[in-house]
Amino acid sequence: MTNKSPLQIARAAYKPKLPLALSGAVKVIEGEKTQSVDNQAEIQAKFPNTYGLPVIRFEADSSTKNKSKEAINVGVILSGGQAPGGHNVISGLFDGIKSINKDSRLFGFLLGPDGLINHKYIELTADIIDEYRNTGGFDIIGSGRTKLEKEEQFDKGLEIVKQLGIKALVIIGGDDSNTNAAVLAEYYKKIGAGVQVIGCPKTIDGDLKNDSIEVSFGFDTACKVYSEVIGNIQRDCNSAKKYWHFIKLMGRSASHIALECALQTQPNVCIISEEVEEKNMTLDDVVNYIADIVARRAADGNNFGTVLIPEGLIEFIPAMKALIAELNDLLAKNKEEFAAAADQRKYIIEHLTEANAAIYASLPLGVARQLSLDRDPHGNVQVSLIETEKLLSEMVGNRLAYMKAEGKYNGSFKPLHHFFGYEGRCAAPTNFDADYCYALGVNATQLIKAGVTGYMSSIRNLTKPSVQWMAGGIPITMMMNMEQRNGEQKPVIRKALVKLEDGPFKKFAAKREKWARETSYVYPGPIQYFGPSEVCDLPPMTLVYEQQSK
Amino acid sequence: MTNKSPLQIARAAYKPKLPLALSGAVKVIEGEKTQSVDNQAEIQAKFPNTYGLPVIRFEADSSTKNKSKEAINVGVILSGGQAPGGHNVISGLFDGIKSINKDSRLFGFLLGPDGLINHKYIELTADIIDEYRNTGGFDIIGSGRTKLEKEEQFDKGLEIVKQLGIKALVIIGGDDSNTNAAVLAEYYKKIGAGVQVIGCPKTIDGDLKNDSIEVSFGFDTACKVYSEVIGNIQRDCNSAKKYWHFIKLMGRSASHIALECALQTQPNVCIISEEVEEKNMTLDDVVNYIADIVARRAADGNNFGTVLIPEGLIEFIPAMKALIAELNDLLAKNKEEFAAAADQRKYIIEHLTEANAAIYASLPLGVARQLSLDRDPHGNVQVSLIETEKLLSEMVGNRLAYMKAEGKYNGSFKPLHHFFGYEGRCAAPTNFDADYCYALGVNATQLIKAGVTGYMSSIRNLTKPSVQWMAGGIPITMMMNMEQRNGEQKPVIRKALVKLEDGPFKKFAAKREKWARETSYVYPGPIQYFGPSEVCDLPPMTLVYEQQSK
Repeated sequence: MTNKSPLQIARAAYKPKLPLALSGAVKVIEGEKTQSVDNQAEIQAKFPNTYGLPVIRFEADSSTKNKSKEAINVGVILSGGQAPGGHNVISGLFDGIKSINKDSRLFGFLLGPDGLINHKYIELTADIIDEYRNTGGFDIIGSGRTKLEKEEQFDKGLEIVKQLGIKALVIIGGDDSNTNAAVLAEYYKKIGAGVQVIGCPKTIDGDLKNDSIEVSFGFDTACKVYSEVIGNIQRDCNSAKKYWHFIKLMGRSASHIALECALQTQPNVCIISEEVEEKNMTLDDVVNYIADIVARRAADGNNFGTVLIPEGLIEFIPAMKALIAELNDLLAKNKEEFAAAADQRKYIIEHLTEANAAIYASLPLGVARQLSLDRDPHGNVQVSLIETEKLLSEMVGNRLAYMKAEGKYNGSFKPLHHFFGYEGRCAAPTNFDADYCYALGVNATQLIKAGVTGYMSSIRNLTKPSVQWMAGGIPITMMMNMEQRNGEQKPVIRKALVKLEDGPFKKFAAKREKWARETSYVYPGPIQYFGPSEVCDLPPMTLVYEQQSK
Repeated sequence: MTNKSPLQIARAAYKPKLPLALSGAVKVIEGEKTQSVDNQAEIQAKFPNTYGLPVIRFEADSSTKNKSKEAINVGVILSGGQAPGGHNVISGLFDGIKSINKDSRLFGFLLGPDGLINHKYIELTADIIDEYRNTGGFDIIGSGRTKLEKEEQFDKGLEIVKQLGIKALVIIGGDDSNTNAAVLAEYYKKIGAGVQVIGCPKTIDGDLKNDSIEVSFGFDTACKVYSEVIGNIQRDCNSAKKYWHFIKLMGRSASHIALECALQTQPNVCIISEEVEEKNMTLDDVVNYIADIVARRAADGNNFGTVLIPEGLIEFIPAMKALIAELNDLLAKNKEEFAAAADQRKYIIEHLTEANAAIYASLPLGVARQLSLDRDPHGNVQVSLIETEKLLSEMVGNRLAYMKAEGKYNGSFKPLHHFFGYEGRCAAPTNFDADYCYALGVNATQLIKAGVTGYMSSIRNLTKPSVQWMAGGIPITMMMNMEQRNGEQKPVIRKALVKLEDGPFKKFAAKREKWARETSYVYPGPIQYFGPSEVCDLPPMTLVYEQQSK
């Protein structure tokens, strides 16, 4: 590899700070037996061999007895969307197994689970690992979205695992990938394959967390990149004083990213999908809420502002959800008739139930078209392609025109639009994520050495300095419940949405009136890697407020 | 001001490094008399009192004789779009006049030239200045786009200038604002107002430069922010290996920003508008060029890539320029008829000349609609609103479908779109811009003290360490020529476009074949303020290659 930027070269030398518990030999401490968060009987029935295992904690051990020094071969898979720090998990794993025995070997399966199934892999040697320390991206071995869930995939994978003498597979992924890791662990245990499976909690979306997993890796870095550009836009906004910036943020269903960015940057408006659903708000309610803030600011002479919008909003508006469901159904059943209709908009309005037809008719034309035309191969609306930021700004504009006619608004409204997502998924990890990920990797090695399977690598106490972090493992089944997926009840890790009763949302809710009316923007600036600790080493704000509220 | 981010607090303490020549008392060295770059007779006739002045150079002076210590009152105006570092120009000015005499006063006119005309201002005191050192944005006094070009504006401004005892106005702006600064200087000189006018070269677009001005401030920071996010996207692109990212970059007419970002990040494709015009390329030529690269990469198994597109591209494609001109004319003349047409697309195609009708008909529907409907109050197409990134990706997709049918392409093409602009205009300045801007401000003070008017603050030798930078002033008229503006010949500063024969473009042109085919992405990462000098203090790459080629 050539062509490195000066920062990349300098950052390669960073040595992640390990928790004290993982700095040398460890003692394995077993906790109580565990239960799944819900549906205990069903989950236990699905995981007879890996259910109910104890939580594991590691402590530093100064004794030297019974320390196995046997070489271990490990396979690693990156699964799903990129998140900053994946390369550090892998370098932690590498250093971990090499510190046990220099003949240990690490194999990386290429382009996600496909690499395991199709036997595509490379050996990750020191020269490769050193090229990727502290870098963003998943390009060391690539990632992929194939779901590892069928027994024939597991069997196919086992062939190459056996061939390479792999003792354990480490799967770095989000909630679905870790659910599948647990299923794979159970299967290999059941057939006596002698292969352990360990998961690592990855996702920028922040929706893989619970009592045992404080935060998924990558969330911190991604949010700091988004907060940097939001802060820059807010500074622009407050200098030009003439635009309203509507900023959509990646994050799938949950609004964790929007909430973290709101706490970091103090925008005038931030919509939290979970609150919209909880309060059963309509699209008009959301539009009116924003329009009222625009009007109040205009009354103060401030015809500018910023609005943060979570990617998944549309699906959390109950009425929109109902419209989308009926549209999916209608268009799937009447595909030819719809395609042949002279006026497709009219066709839709005439065939929907009255309530949904009224909502559809109220949507801006561009969005209505996206709802009816941009459909996936199964005929479903592609919600992630809907430009919610434009939808909202157009409807806010209409509402303001109406308010103006009523004499309730007298300002100018010029919206601009942004969507941030791909900018943050592969940034070089912050010190927090670099340390956290490296620790997750080293910790995974200890779980392998402890001989367990179906565990997730767990590092806790993350709001403290990294030397004080706690290391251990959590049985993945402990995080599960049964949920409806594609028409079947399945055991899955419960997705963590924003909780309205928790610290982060309450902090936001207590401030938002002030932020709406006043201009209280904060400019976080770009991620710093070399400066003072109070600039470079901060954990996510949502994590801090969550821990405080516990 | 409360609510500062940790970085903002830490960065406030940064002390910009001044050139040796400006670190203490200075000696004024007058160079040769100057000439305008073209149309000397016309420019001289327009500027009888300020034409032909000498270039001025400052040198450190250890003698203490004849040093005036008289207090000076200065007024400062931020004009036009934001650029990182404006606050440092102002803090340099403040420190400059205070170092002469602590009773000197600095007045900031609010929201651009309007503040001067309408007598809206604040006094910038130490506590205000200290809040804004090394920060981005123009929010200290705001900016505006009102053009200062009429005598009644000058007279109105003079009232408040006299009232505040202001000896000199410093106008921080781009080419147009500095042109107007020269006109104002000439006018105040002519009427014997006793008020000096000094310009400072600001614009992220990088199109205000010439033999005397090496680079405008803000260009470095803005390009580094864009390069950060482009690099992050490229890392994502190279990890997921399934998307083509079409990234439009701000920069008005000139392609300096796109070129700088291309040199920083090494994308697969970067279009340079000036080359498109020089080679008289059609829109289809541009599309085919990109499609061929997509197809060649697909042949290597790489169905991903990045394309950088300069904001002004459309206007540099001669055929599109002709189409837009005819459309502007057609729709202005037949406004009612067009508005009443049942099928507006058909109406346009029937009324355009054959060549333009064919181009219009070939455009994707969304873009055709933008061309015909999104018009400014004068009835002109709003070129900056055209989503060129979507236009190109859609046409590339069509071209690839055609190539596939011909058996010349066998890959998958999934485009994603981005536009970066507002993210970079108000970022906290890099060390380069922080030092450069502060020096421009201190230097402007010396020009005021030297008693000159109609000069631009000039700091040169910028690729060297800042202590070696050269300081001085350039008569603004020296950079002028006559150009057609709104139907009249006017004296203006010549806008600097990308020169195809200069070092930066040649460097790019020599590498682009390789970058297109291979994946040579560089990941510059976020701007660093505290790290090693080789990471934090680099000047723009285009500037380095320009200086090397001189």
